[in-house]
Amino acid sequence: MIYSNTYQDDVLGVLNTPVQKKGRDDSRRKLIRAGAEMLCEQSYASMGVDHVLLRAGLTKGSFYHFFPSKEEFVLEVIAHFTEHFNQKLDRTLTGTGTPPLERIRQYIHSGEIGMARFEFRRGCLIGNLSHEVSSRSSTFRDALDKAFKGWEDRIEACLKEAVELGELSRFADTKALAEFFWTGWEGALIRAKVEMSSGSIIRFAEQFFTMLPKPSTK
Amino acid sequence: MIYSNTYQDDVLGVLNTPVQKKGRDDSRRKLIRAGAEMLCEQSYASMGVDHVLLRAGLTKGSFYHFFPSKEEFVLEVIAHFTEHFNQKLDRTLTGTGTPPLERIRQYIHSGEIGMARFEFRRGCLIGNLSHEVSSRSSTFRDALDKAFKGWEDRIEACLKEAVELGELSRFADTKALAEFFWTGWEGALIRAKVEMSSGSIIRFAEQFFTMLPKPSTK
Repeated sequence: MIYSNTYQDDVLGVLNTPVQKKGRDDSRRKLIRAGAEMLCEQSYASMGVDHVLLRAGLTKGSFYHFFPSKEEFVLEVIAHFTEHFNQKLDRTLTGTGTPPLERIRQYIHSGEIGMARFEFRRGCLIGNLSHEVSSRSSTFRDALDKAFKGWEDRIEACLKEAVELGELSRFADTKALAEFFWTGWEGALIRAKVEMSSGSIIRFAEQFFTMLPKPSTK
Repeated sequence: MIYSNTYQDDVLGVLNTPVQKKGRDDSRRKLIRAGAEMLCEQSYASMGVDHVLLRAGLTKGSFYHFFPSKEEFVLEVIAHFTEHFNQKLDRTLTGTGTPPLERIRQYIHSGEIGMARFEFRRGCLIGNLSHEVSSRSSTFRDALDKAFKGWEDRIEACLKEAVELGELSRFADTKALAEFFWTGWEGALIRAKVEMSSGSIIRFAEQFFTMLPKPSTK
């Protein structure tokens, strides 16, 4: 997952409510958005509360008005980021006239575009935090695990459709393949940052689709 | 890659020289080792020079005696970690009586054991740094890219042997498969930290071997 060019609109969709656009809710939303952007680019350790406030254009008091600690704040960021991408996956992967595997290709392509848009400085907030904060608390681990599982469920559903429509072998283990997809995806995003190119994402996708179990032609 | 239980012996093999075991070389080696251990567990941002010195049991002056900056220090750590794992891969993956694919399985298994030994707190130093410091400088990116490419070359050579021995299809794209392996490996290590279990590594390996192109039985 990456914090794509469409994040702004999407996250407003997730967080916005028709009332109280300004004021309390607006400040809270700005903080969460600033935190999400920063955690896609840098480590948890290097993200000071002062920097979040600066990015959000708010004064110091407002942070602790909304969040008791940096940890609680980041848990909120994870929850919103997870929900944001669940919604994005739902839009991309379900219920269209496009064949299921093509929908996954479209999702991958949107990731390439998002990475390039931010010159490969932004990665996956969930992947970034997974290695850095997992050992801090089970609360962090649970939140990160929930993100991965939600994404897996959505890819799995799409792969199941592909089986039903004869795009994949009826023996395909769609659950295992869905986890395998996200495992490789996280690795591909890491390499994209090192190479400053979407080449690793493209090569990962090509190999994944090449290796998917095809329906028997007999 | 993870900083396994065999790192101590291995890294001494990499860094040690027959003379000057004590003194200057010894201090330098202690610093690099402390840095490598810390960067497997935590972020670049959170690793202060003071903490490295404390872990290495050395006084402040000694750090800047050896390294002009934290960045130069971490580049040395990356270089030694890369070389250490190249040697480990060479030992595991080449020239034994074990079939090539079984050697890869043995490497994976050693990774599982290493992760469990440190209770899933330690991940891959190269993967960890890739997302965090890639945007800092091309020097970092080059060093990290070199690590990935060295590991890929070694897995590719092993997969080529598997093709020659009829374990894999002669049409297998061993270069693409080698990159695909490491991409998934990095993702599996991230998940292992979240789950505090080697389950993700085991499932990744199972799926990778299931999807490898088998030789035709016709």
